[in-house]
Amino acid sequence: MSNSLLSITDLGRTEIEDICATASSFEEIGTREIKKVPTLRGRTVVNLFYENSTRTRVSFELAAKRLSADVINVSADASSVKKGESLRDTARTLLAMGADAIVLRHPAAGAPALLSRWVDASVINAGDGAHEHPTQALLDIYTARKHIGSLDGVRIGFVGDIEHSRVARSGALGFSRMGADVVLIAPPTMLPLGVDALGCSTSYDLDRELPTLDIVYLLRLQRERHAAADRIPSEREFVEGWGLTRERAARLRDSALVMHAGPMNRGVELDWDVAELPIALITDQVSAGVATRMALLYTLLGSMQPAEVSA
Amino acid sequence: MSNSLLSITDLGRTEIEDICATASSFEEIGTREIKKVPTLRGRTVVNLFYENSTRTRVSFELAAKRLSADVINVSADASSVKKGESLRDTARTLLAMGADAIVLRHPAAGAPALLSRWVDASVINAGDGAHEHPTQALLDIYTARKHIGSLDGVRIGFVGDIEHSRVARSGALGFSRMGADVVLIAPPTMLPLGVDALGCSTSYDLDRELPTLDIVYLLRLQRERHAAADRIPSEREFVEGWGLTRERAARLRDSALVMHAGPMNRGVELDWDVAELPIALITDQVSAGVATRMALLYTLLGSMQPAEVSA
Amino acid sequence: MSNSLLSITDLGRTEIEDICATASSFEEIGTREIKKVPTLRGRTVVNLFYENSTRTRVSFELAAKRLSADVINVSADASSVKKGESLRDTARTLLAMGADAIVLRHPAAGAPALLSRWVDASVINAGDGAHEHPTQALLDIYTARKHIGSLDGVRIGFVGDIEHSRVARSGALGFSRMGADVVLIAPPTMLPLGVDALGCSTSYDLDRELPTLDIVYLLRLQRERHAAADRIPSEREFVEGWGLTRERAARLRDSALVMHAGPMNRGVELDWDVAELPIALITDQVSAGVATRMALLYTLLGSMQPAEVSA
Repeated sequence: MSNSLLSITDLGRTEIEDICATASSFEEIGTREIKKVPTLRGRTVVNLFYENSTRTRVSFELAAKRLSADVINVSADASSVKKGESLRDTARTLLAMGADAIVLRHPAAGAPALLSRWVDASVINAGDGAHEHPTQALLDIYTARKHIGSLDGVRIGFVGDIEHSRVARSGALGFSRMGADVVLIAPPTMLPLGVDALGCSTSYDLDRELPTLDIVYLLRLQRERHAAADRIPSEREFVEGWGLTRERAARLRDSALVMHAGPMNRGVELDWDVAELPIALITDQVSAGVATRMALLYTLLGSMQPAEVSA
Repeated sequence: MSNSLLSITDLGRTEIEDICATASSFEEIGTREIKKVPTLRGRTVVNLFYENSTRTRVSFELAAKRLSADVINVSADASSVKKGESLRDTARTLLAMGADAIVLRHPAAGAPALLSRWVDASVINAGDGAHEHPTQALLDIYTARKHIGSLDGVRIGFVGDIEHSRVARSGALGFSRMGADVVLIAPPTMLPLGVDALGCSTSYDLDRELPTLDIVYLLRLQRERHAAADRIPSEREFVEGWGLTRERAARLRDSALVMHAGPMNRGVELDWDVAELPIALITDQVSAGVATRMALLYTLLGSMQPAEVSA
Repeated sequence: MSNSLLSITDLGRTEIEDICATASSFEEIGTREIKKVPTLRGRTVVNLFYENSTRTRVSFELAAKRLSADVINVSADASSVKKGESLRDTARTLLAMGADAIVLRHPAAGAPALLSRWVDASVINAGDGAHEHPTQALLDIYTARKHIGSLDGVRIGFVGDIEHSRVARSGALGFSRMGADVVLIAPPTMLPLGVDALGCSTSYDLDRELPTLDIVYLLRLQRERHAAADRIPSEREFVEGWGLTRERAARLRDSALVMHAGPMNRGVELDWDVAELPIALITDQVSAGVATRMALLYTLLGSMQPAEVSA
């Protein structure tokens, strides 16, 4: 395994299982009074965010702090970026300051991959354009495995805005790798050309798929983008066809689970009270996020120098 | 006592005295070389600020760090908020990540109370609209007691913009609880209807009250709001009637004290050099803020698990 | 030595050499797994930035964290500043909260000097207007000494926008103090009146100076300011006369070194690939920044209480 995570496909099935096992022990730490281990003391993790994301930034920040690393937050509105410095020079600067890992969120697909070629530090893709969000896939796999066990043959449907969703992309690739049967369910205008390359089946009809699914994974409708893009006539029509309403939730299998990466548009992707059902794993996913990212940082930074690691 | 602080009235007189006693020992720590105790090591405190406030945010951040807690700052301009996520979902997310306490500043009165019903974490109201700012009252009581001793029968006048002031509201309730005699002094347009419910006397005439006061508490004139609101004809007329000018300061009792929660508009609520008098406790209040908030975090988070606490 | 650093001229040659020696041992720590020493544990360092600067803020933040200090970031867009609070009152507030050092970046020349008169804490000038940036000079001297040894008689040319450059100002003063021979090279419109007071020679002709230089120090062209200020007809003409192109780099002495404080405008102050030459010390300067600032914080805060210091 390289010292970076750019795509969920960088990880083989065994590696994903190993990270999940490590995450499981870290999740236990999160329930203790003292939610902290000295594993990465003296290491420096930089959150380099060219797009805002409270949720992902805080999750990585907590993961690093609970491993006792020092965390530096750098956001897009910071001045070097404004002054037109290239990503490459910014990254080199951070590396020269001693960054051990750079967690990069960037609007351009492929930015983390470029970065990893330029610098020696670990690069973690925290979301690049509409491309990938591999730590989201990791935490989703962790959460699903925790509730279901093996994902072999489990049928998961990603529903909604496939086109703009790095969550769907990394999820589809990751769940497939774990043996799941993935179907992408969306209005025709939200299923991009070339989606076949992900190796999943596709469908326009949520109602037909509903009884076949073990997991319904709802994708955030990116309102700001669709108003302009005219992908859907209106939110109401989206809800009618692809929203997880109370009625639809009632038709799910008994054992089916509902997932969403958040932030949710309640009343759009899913009804207000569907999010409150016990089968909805949304807060489980958030908890898993911190544990999984701890496991990833530990795997990328900690396990290479066994003498320094102590949990 | 619950594990949250929403209103200063959540605390009885004895509880306030206990927090002040704890704050006193923490204030001593603040004078040491190593201003840090391991009391809350491994705990997570989130500053969730929907309004900017350097002063309050930094005070809580330092309080938590000096107790060795991990601190996460989340501000209103962060993206989940922009993306329209509800306060409830944001709070749940933070809780799922393992937040032990959420320090909430919010423009809407009552937001912290709602939050505390939704989450198990400690919720600390760091100012909600024109409603309350209970930690300000705590630090003000601590500061006054330090200089005066018992507040029984002490006469304190809150002067100026009562209507918009959560500082006045929490202060009036808190000082009353400690046995003080509170009078609200303001232009008629700044004394809201229903202010009687606070159980204090009111006055329009600072000059008449001046010789009766042990403490003059000046409230920040919120310029940005008054320009529009037409509450006062002009700042000059406000100063003439309700500003603590040099002349007025000279007519104070010998033992009288001057307080202000900051940031001050020097030349408006008080003259430039009145703020420099030895009787002005403004920087004492700031110091007390860190110690009092340490005491509060310790009380809410630390004292419940005595085995984990060591100062 | 005072407990503040306002100008590079606050430091004598021996003091600069001492800080460089300390920085050298801290730089070694930066190459370790655990890049952290407990030297300033429990101390509070505040980064008070009235101008954005990722690079300088992160460098100071890392320096303080690697010394185990608590770091608080306060930026210009924070509310107290917006609410019109004076620098003096803001600084007093931070001091009352227990700040041991205030690292100040401010658009007004002289702001750190004023601040140091008002507060007891250490004040470190992190750049004030077009005046000084003494820690930049320190790290540049450290970097040059590391590569060259003694700077006595070494000839260094600062090239480009002298007028707006606090880097050039502090650099010229600092390198002169270390025995170097400093020449300021710029278009006539970028050499301010009174520059003689720095005690350096000046030149308009980079090509004539090129073969005489041991160090070429390129200054960032502040595009945003020049568009309006009409100091140069166009960037292209600046590059033709004062840019370090490939052709010019080829005419440098064999032992010559190239420096730049960053962020670079590649293709303007220097060609893309000139920045990649082994003689270009740009990332060395960045690394040196953290080590030098650690040394400075240690010198200002740590060495006064020897009993508390342990590396």
